[in-house]
Amino acid sequence: QTRFKVAVLAGDGIGPEVMAEAHKVLNAVEARFGLTFERTDALVGGAAIDAVGQPLPPQTLSICQQSDAILFGSVGGPKWTGLAPDQQPERGSLLPLRKTFDLFCNLRPGQIYPAFADLSPLHPRVSSQGMDVLCVRELTGGIYFGEKGRGEDSAFDTQTYSKAEISRIARVAFEAAQKRSHKVTSIDKANVLQTSILWREVVTEVAKDFPDVALEHMYIDNAAMQLIRSPQQFDVLLCDNLFGDILSDELAAIAGSMGLLPSASLNGSGFGLYEPAGGSAPDIAGKGIANPIAQILSAALMLRYSFGLEEAAKAIEQAVQQCLQQGIVTRDIQPDSSYGTADVGSAIANAI
Amino acid sequence: QTRFKVAVLAGDGIGPEVMAEAHKVLNAVEARFGLTFERTDALVGGAAIDAVGQPLPPQTLSICQQSDAILFGSVGGPKWTGLAPDQQPERGSLLPLRKTFDLFCNLRPGQIYPAFADLSPLHPRVSSQGMDVLCVRELTGGIYFGEKGRGEDSAFDTQTYSKAEISRIARVAFEAAQKRSHKVTSIDKANVLQTSILWREVVTEVAKDFPDVALEHMYIDNAAMQLIRSPQQFDVLLCDNLFGDILSDELAAIAGSMGLLPSASLNGSGFGLYEPAGGSAPDIAGKGIANPIAQILSAALMLRYSFGLEEAAKAIEQAVQQCLQQGIVTRDIQPDSSYGTADVGSAIANAI
Ligand SMILES: CC(C)[C@H](C(=O)O)[C@@H](O)C(=O)O
Ligand SMILES: CC(C)[C@H](C(=O)O)[C@@H](O)C(=O)O
Repeated sequence: QTRFKVAVLAGDGIGPEVMAEAHKVLNAVEARFGLTFERTDALVGGAAIDAVGQPLPPQTLSICQQSDAILFGSVGGPKWTGLAPDQQPERGSLLPLRKTFDLFCNLRPGQIYPAFADLSPLHPRVSSQGMDVLCVRELTGGIYFGEKGRGEDSAFDTQTYSKAEISRIARVAFEAAQKRSHKVTSIDKANVLQTSILWREVVTEVAKDFPDVALEHMYIDNAAMQLIRSPQQFDVLLCDNLFGDILSDELAAIAGSMGLLPSASLNGSGFGLYEPAGGSAPDIAGKGIANPIAQILSAALMLRYSFGLEEAAKAIEQAVQQCLQQGIVTRDIQPDSSYGTADVGSAIANAI
Repeated sequence: QTRFKVAVLAGDGIGPEVMAEAHKVLNAVEARFGLTFERTDALVGGAAIDAVGQPLPPQTLSICQQSDAILFGSVGGPKWTGLAPDQQPERGSLLPLRKTFDLFCNLRPGQIYPAFADLSPLHPRVSSQGMDVLCVRELTGGIYFGEKGRGEDSAFDTQTYSKAEISRIARVAFEAAQKRSHKVTSIDKANVLQTSILWREVVTEVAKDFPDVALEHMYIDNAAMQLIRSPQQFDVLLCDNLFGDILSDELAAIAGSMGLLPSASLNGSGFGLYEPAGGSAPDIAGKGIANPIAQILSAALMLRYSFGLEEAAKAIEQAVQQCLQQGIVTRDIQPDSSYGTADVGSAIANAI
């Protein structure tokens, strides 16, 4: 297969700017590998609220449905924070997209590259040891989607997990660990939660199919601590929806290079949503200084996971490494850099 | 009042060693201020499991009930990790104690002292700015105590919060902020959870009674990130039970000086449980090198919050500061130190 359909949801803030650079890179990949990425733009987030009154319009959903993958920019900004929580750009677009497409598996890598260790807010005695962690987060279950409600003087949320939900995400974590450093740390709160006890049981069971992977269980509070103290102890973190939300952001903060971190949200049939780990960064939007690398690496993950184009994905990742090595980076990476968003995008596209 | 009854639950690991030093300090306070702390030892945690088969024996509970406060050491260790979650030393003692005595309010300070900034795992460019955060955690509600259960192929936990539960802990946070830097950051996940929407509403309402305190709301994922990036932006963190569990440990990790951090768990009538933030540290137990300061500062909090002995509490805190300044510290604080647990305890007692 050489033709792929991509729904492009650029969104708000720096979303459109960094997406423009991902386009350049995808064009370069088309040329070099003889591929066609048929891209269709669609409204999402605040931009969609402004245009048609809702963060995920039916038209956008249908474009996504007709595509092989979604390349997502970022959504949200001060303009829409006054809206009711479920109307807001982030929540109002991401949660229904995850549910509609059963994107149960969220992959969020976090690295400290020795050459850029100083980007990390950790002490050099810690960051100099490097870090290479993949957070595997369950994305369509747990307290996010359980029954919830409001009484007159109270409210409740329910966290539920089934064995099937746990084992399918656990398998992803173990398979990922097999291609990495062969270690899974499963996060739970089994000293308090019934869902965590089940989580631990099922993960332990799944582990039997992966004798070459070491499994360790860790309480979420301890993990929040250990990630700061010695992040190099981790390889793959396996988390439920809520704990994964928290730890993946903690991981990103520790990496210190949000502008470099992509993410993938996948279902069981190769469909996925790909987005930078950072937000819409309204403070720097429109200035041409946003780092496009996370968006570009998200496109690389799309090629790998949804299109099976491993070689093309690697080509993008190598081009990114090359630019990082040559110092062609925006100022979030190198404060005295004079390169802007478009310079970095073009350099990466040229390197392909 | 000059007589107070204290239930002393030293527990496991380093618990008994550091408790011995707290006793020395309490003796010194008795002598200097003409007070009597009538102390009764009781079994708890692994020690209680070994002796009588349960982590919180009825006898211990009744000693606590006859006391004005509980001075708690630490519980747990490798010997008991094989037990079912609800039988384990930590969970099996702490949760029932919190519930029995309605200890709804957990106070956990975390500081980076400029003189000891290097203890923090954060980069000096961050830690040199110092940090002084108080985490106020709701301790008897939320997903810890909601209905939970297990089906054949699934499990569930319920998080519930009432307005009354939220407002009483919010008041504690605002009152604390009034004595500190007049800022409360309330943590929630209001873009996903109904309990968080209620939390945000009630906290906003309570804030009206504290016009001199600035209130800010922050999502838990963002807070986990911000605490690492710029912890100096925070004064008081107001958290529900689960988020407080995670963030207070993250805060302790950032402070980097677990051996210095006390905590208090209070109810509405002055009764409280006081314990070091660190664990039972079985790896260094019995070696005489554990840092007794967190235990001693926990005793100081007991004098302040349960006994209303502000002057005596300050005397302990000043004595601790003096030892820190003089470098009379264990090796977790100063790796080349030759002082042991007993040296530090005696020095603090002598300074009183
Ligand atoms: C916007 C929000 C609902 C979402 C989440 O909590 O999952 C976001 O924080 C994320 O991690 O993608
Ligand atoms: C032992 C455990 C149940 C407890 C908690 O989660 O509250 C502990 O982590 C704490 O923070 O005191």
